[in-house]
Parts: sequence; C-alpha cells; structure tokens
Amino acid sequence: MNLKEKYGEWGIILGATEGVGKATAEKIAQGGMNVVLVGRREEKLHELGKEISEKYNVEHLVIRADFSEENAADEIFEKTKDLDMGFMSYVACLHRFGKLQDTEWEWHQKMLNVNINTFLKCFYHYMGIFTKQKRGAVVNYSSLTGVTSSPYNAQYGACKAYIAKLTEAVAYESRGCVDVMAATLGSTITPSWLQNQPGGEEGKKAIAAAMTPEAVADEIFENLGKVRSLVVGERNRKNVHHWHCDLTADEAAEYMGKFYE
Amino acid sequence: MNLKEKYGEWGIILGATEGVGKATAEKIAQGGMNVVLVGRREEKLHELGKEISEKYNVEHLVIRADFSEENAADEIFEKTKDLDMGFMSYVACLHRFGKLQDTEWEWHQKMLNVNINTFLKCFYHYMGIFTKQKRGAVVNYSSLTGVTSSPYNAQYGACKAYIAKLTEAVAYESRGCVDVMAATLGSTITPSWLQNQPGGEEGKKAIAAAMTPEAVADEIFENLGKVRSLVVGERNRKNVHHWHCDLTADEAAEYMGKFYE
Repeated sequence: MNLKEKYGEWGIILGATEGVGKATAEKIAQGGMNVVLVGRREEKLHELGKEISEKYNVEHLVIRADFSEENAADEIFEKTKDLDMGFMSYVACLHRFGKLQDTEWEWHQKMLNVNINTFLKCFYHYMGIFTKQKRGAVVNYSSLTGVTSSPYNAQYGACKAYIAKLTEAVAYESRGCVDVMAATLGSTITPSWLQNQPGGEEGKKAIAAAMTPEAVADEIFENLGKVRSLVVGERNRKNVHHWHCDLTADEAAEYMGKFYE
Repeated sequence: MNLKEKYGEWGIILGATEGVGKATAEKIAQGGMNVVLVGRREEKLHELGKEISEKYNVEHLVIRADFSEENAADEIFEKTKDLDMGFMSYVACLHRFGKLQDTEWEWHQKMLNVNINTFLKCFYHYMGIFTKQKRGAVVNYSSLTGVTSSPYNAQYGACKAYIAKLTEAVAYESRGCVDVMAATLGSTITPSWLQNQPGGEEGKKAIAAAMTPEAVADEIFENLGKVRSLVVGERNRKNVHHWHCDLTADEAAEYMGKFYE
C-alpha cells in the first residue's frame, strides 16, 4: 500500500527503538514514508534509521527524547515542524511492578509522564495537523492489561486503558478525515517482554502463545482505516471476549493479578 | 453499619459539594464517621457540613481546594495529617465537550489535573495510610463513558477508564486489608448532569432512567468490602454487558458518540 500518497511524506514513531515501534517504523517505510524515530537510545535509533533507509529507500530522522521528562514533546514538535507529517504512532510506555503505594512517587510521576502526559501532547499536536490537512493516520498502542486492570502493575494497566479509550473516542470523532486506531496488544515477543518471562517450560509456553512484532504490525496495517479499535490477534480477541462476557470485573482482575503473585 | 468502628474516625470526600459526593458524605456520617468535605465552593461546603453535623451528630471539616491546581493535594494532606483517617472517596471530575484537538490545551491540562493527577496523589497518599494501619476504605467514582469510550468527551471517558482500572487493580492488591471499590456510574440525577439534559420528552425519559445519588450511595455501601468493581444499577450493568458482548468496541463508541452529535 502506498502510504506516502495516502497520508503524507513523513511518519513519526514515538518509542521506535525496538519491538513494536521498530516493526511499525518498517511498515510505514515499506509504504514509502520517511521515518522520524524517537527514543532515548540515540545510537540504536541511528542504526535502525540507516537500516530502514537502505532497505526501503526512504529518509530518516532521529530525535533523542526521554518521554518521562516534562518538556520532551516540545522539542519533538520543534524538530518536525517543517516536515510534511502524515503518520504518528505512540509506542512508548513505562511500568513498575509492585503494589501502588509501595512504588516511590517519583516513579508514578515518570509513568504518568511517559504513558499519559507526553502521549496526550503528541496525539493532540499531530491530530491538530492531520485534521487541518484532512489526511493522516495514527496508531496508538494499548494492552490487554488495560482491559482486565493489572494488579501489581496497576499504573501501567490504567494508563493503557486511558490510551485505548482516548484513542477510540478520537477515532470516531475523526472518521472519514484521519485514520485513527487504538491497537490493543497481548503478549508480544519484544526484548523488554522477554526479560519478564520465566525460564523453563512455562517460559517456552508463554513465547509459543505470543505474537511477533511483525505479525502485530501486519494485522494493524491491514485494518487501518477500517477498524478503529482493534484487539490484535485471534487468541487475544477470544480472551477479551471471555473476560468481558464470562467473568466479572473482579474475576478478570484476579486472573491478571495471579500472574504477578 | 458502624463504619467508624470498622474504618476509623474520619473520612474525606474529594468533591463533596453536591450530588454523589454529598450522598457519599452523608452515608459515612450515618455510619458514625466525621467528614472532611473538600471542594471549591467553601460556603456551600460549610452549609453541608453544618447540616451533616446536626443530622448525624458527627464533626466536620471543610477544606477549600481546586483539584485542577498543581499542588491542591499537598494542602489537603497537611490539613488532615493529625486526623485518624479511615475513608476516602474521589468524586471530583472535569469535562469539556468537543473534539479533542478543538479543545484548548489549557483545558486538557486542567482535566488531567482534576481527573488523574490529583486523583492519583490522593489515592496514593491515603492508601499508604490505610495499608499501614490495616484498616480503611476507598470508593473511587468512574463512569459508563469509561467503558464505551466517549466521543466529543474523549478526555473525560479516558480519565474515567484510568480511575476504574487503577482502582480495580489496587482493590485486588489490598483485599483483606483495605476495602477498595471502583464504582462505575451511569446517568445520575445531579445538578451538573441535569444541566446537560435536553428539554421536553427526551429530557423526561433521561431523568426517568437515571438514578438518584442516594440510591447510588446505598448500593455502593451495601457492596463495599464484598465487590471491588461495581457497575451501579441493574440497568447500567445490563448496558455494560450488552456493549461488551453484543457490540464491537467501534459500535459501542458510535453508540456513545451519537448522543453528542
């Protein structure tokens, strides 16, 4: 699909370094768009940018940003203000395991910044541009933890619910003008996900049930412009339906909580 | 029910002036607890406090606070630090109708402050106290708009989803120690809700289908300590089940969006 013709010259991936961010960047480059890669690890982003530019014959721009910092977004806007923007995707997220009140307040502030404040600033900013030019697309990433709620990872799940519900609503508001999607992911084989998996048979089972970032991105781009809220993966869709229709909210939270106990 | 014996001397209602906040304050006063009433309209809070003190023979304390201000919570904590606290309820909320990118950024910042930042600070603070003393209860208020997402009221719905999912998770984490409930409300006959209703037959129908704040509070306190996530009202529970099990997320958002179009 020629995304460049449909949406514009440049797309921005906020949290592009690896996993789903990287797969999303590759997907829009494959569609002919130049990529703005944003994240903390500048060197890795430059490597990825070079790789993408060579493979898909598009330009790339790297912006170093720490989404947990108050003014991270302003610098990003400044650096993309002269580009013909047509796509944005917010992938960045931050979590911290433990009971809510046992996690230092500083971490809660950081999680709010990464998962909500910087997200909202970026979504608001680029939606303003895309709406004015009547073309563009947005894919924001949520998680199954935002469906069930996520004991011992409460802040993360709640922020993911915020992202999903905000994006779903805006997707409806902007239908026929800007293609917006809330993509809800289950287990996805990314470097940070792998770090949290147990070893042995249990770990193997978890990996066998998880999706690759490439499969996630494929499904999303097949549905972009058609579906506004997508739970990615048949197994994940079945789980959501089961939690919503066979369990109470208390039972669903318990199911998720038992993973971390 | 003797709430004072079970939870402690004092309860705090954040957003107590009217509607559900007022009904919650009356409920804990009826259970023997002294009430800390927090809100912007000091005079109305003093009136309510006097009324409650006379009716239920309990003490009251009024704290003036604007939850949209950065440091609103700190002052509240300072003023309650010497009280034996045993209950908190976050009722305050702020909304603004319109498309996300058409609402001035200043309003988004205010909504984030009222609906998320100040909420989280308060929940975190009092959960710390209640957990340490191994007694206490929390009721945080969410809304059906956080279930479906809420086009043209996107920020509000997303924040309400955040409150629900954070509270559900923490309720599981603290089960058997602190009684925490996420209460999800549908249409409730409060002064601010009435302002947004249409006139004529349609308005009458809406009012007939809505619950009173007193009925809401009754159902919540009957279930506090037993249910952690409660959709209040049989009609509302049926709607949630219908949206989750018979509609896609896109259809549910469309259903909600059509109200505001």
